[in-house]
Amino acid sequence: MKDLKGKLIKKSMKATARMITMLENQDPSAIEILADLYSLTGNAKVIGITGPPGAGKSTLTDKLVKGLRKKDKKVGIIAVDPTSPFSGGSILGDRIRMSDLATDPGVFIRSMGTRGHLGGLSKATQGAVKALDLYGMDYIIIETVGVGQSEVDIVKTADTVVMVMVPGLGDDIQAIKAGIMEIGDIFAINKADRDGAAKTHREIANMLDFVEKDWKPPIEQVVALQNQGIDNLLNHILDHLNYLDTTNQLIDRRINSSRIEIMELMKERLMEDFIKEEDIQEDLEVCAREVAQRENNPYRASEELLKKVITKEAKNYENH
Amino acid sequence: MKDLKGKLIKKSMKATARMITMLENQDPSAIEILADLYSLTGNAKVIGITGPPGAGKSTLTDKLVKGLRKKDKKVGIIAVDPTSPFSGGSILGDRIRMSDLATDPGVFIRSMGTRGHLGGLSKATQGAVKALDLYGMDYIIIETVGVGQSEVDIVKTADTVVMVMVPGLGDDIQAIKAGIMEIGDIFAINKADRDGAAKTHREIANMLDFVEKDWKPPIEQVVALQNQGIDNLLNHILDHLNYLDTTNQLIDRRINSSRIEIMELMKERLMEDFIKEEDIQEDLEVCAREVAQRENNPYRASEELLKKVITKEAKNYENH
Repeated sequence: MKDLKGKLIKKSMKATARMITMLENQDPSAIEILADLYSLTGNAKVIGITGPPGAGKSTLTDKLVKGLRKKDKKVGIIAVDPTSPFSGGSILGDRIRMSDLATDPGVFIRSMGTRGHLGGLSKATQGAVKALDLYGMDYIIIETVGVGQSEVDIVKTADTVVMVMVPGLGDDIQAIKAGIMEIGDIFAINKADRDGAAKTHREIANMLDFVEKDWKPPIEQVVALQNQGIDNLLNHILDHLNYLDTTNQLIDRRINSSRIEIMELMKERLMEDFIKEEDIQEDLEVCAREVAQRENNPYRASEELLKKVITKEAKNYENH
Repeated sequence: MKDLKGKLIKKSMKATARMITMLENQDPSAIEILADLYSLTGNAKVIGITGPPGAGKSTLTDKLVKGLRKKDKKVGIIAVDPTSPFSGGSILGDRIRMSDLATDPGVFIRSMGTRGHLGGLSKATQGAVKALDLYGMDYIIIETVGVGQSEVDIVKTADTVVMVMVPGLGDDIQAIKAGIMEIGDIFAINKADRDGAAKTHREIANMLDFVEKDWKPPIEQVVALQNQGIDNLLNHILDHLNYLDTTNQLIDRRINSSRIEIMELMKERLMEDFIKEEDIQEDLEVCAREVAQRENNPYRASEELLKKVITKEAKNYENH
């Protein structure tokens, strides 16, 4: 482990890959190493890319990375796949193998799954960002499928967030749009050669009229497959990062992202460690059965169980 | 409040609607009432309907409800909109106003947003299911946009889950499929008159080959807008509910759903109540700033803060 730490400091690619696997497997020693090396992180700029399924986020990410490579920047990509509890990191394997970025030494691509755990993905993703930061990446892109709450929480920890939309999403576009207005710093309408791009553009612009922020999120129509509009989009991203720097807002963003991370870690500790202890699991099973049979109600049951967990852990703290 | 309880027992529509609003607003007295009346619930069968944005879940739900109404069943619909933190319950308002179901006294439609809170949606949704159960609905449909983890957690509490797919979702279909195989009891391919329906059907069937369950999830191609295939889909749903009943698996499902609900309630109590207390919030702000400035690391900070919360709450328990 001391060895691994040394290799991470020396920016070994193999050690970085191993570290991320350990994080995915929720190996406690990986967290120990990150805690030790944490003061060395914070140099990379983190870009979040999100949007609904089918919006072409992967293609768009590839093109943006190529744009950054032309500027001689090193880029880490973390493709988060939170909806695949049993697919592990393999699902995006095909994509990674196909991408010509895979052989570029200035690029580190990694997909993150949950490997059977339902919790822990946020922790692993945040850890992977730190590992790639240590590895010396100038930019780290977090790409996440989906528009759900967990995905939003993950992408919120980025310095800048690109929301990828697509023409003709149907009725759900209303729901999606409302939820993302507050987290999108830049809007990309991908597949803009399709019917309805102008309409989608107008709809987003209308929604943004209600956002009261110093930074007015730009909207860029792109066709990622044809590399159209990518340069403009990349400029918007760099502009926003520059804006954060010059207005001293980057530190505010990072305080916010640290707050989210601390809270996530607390939640995970309760739900992944404390609640998994044998006696608590037994009680949970009894409670769940009683509630299902209407002999108890879930509100009282959860209060009783939480009291038990807290009393137990408080005693543990006293004894250590 | 005593009054409201009495009206709920008497199945007042107005009281039920008020109750759900109180749940959305996280009014503690609403939870007290549900705790008191919990033993009267559990009669309705709960159907979860989920799938990616643009799959046409709303239209499909409408048609299924009409099918159930023909069988003279009363139906509650809860449309969950977890990605819209500031849209409240209004976003699906247009849909509800447009639906001719809105005037049918045997149908209760309600959309649930998060009203500015990021937590609490799962709790409010589970509460709304109970309120509609008390109201005497035979079936309650939970319809949720998105494919994220929170959405999956919500829909997992249903007795039976319909996964709505659509031809031509693009690359992300792989990710979506892998994540949902374990929770889908029935698969609907909507908009099956589009190109690629047979391919999507084949892909789902291939994935299902790996699922080792007694119940082999059926796949039904439908065109909800034209009411095609809806009767078959409804039969699959009723078959599955019947299968659960006759094999005594319904109680297992409900124990599982109670377990999820208890755990969610514990998590929310920690994150929405304990952590929101003033002294803890102050500590969290200090920690977040230190972590952002690399003077502390998030792992140690979260441990320290959790210890503080637990020690404090344990003392509170002692004193009460």
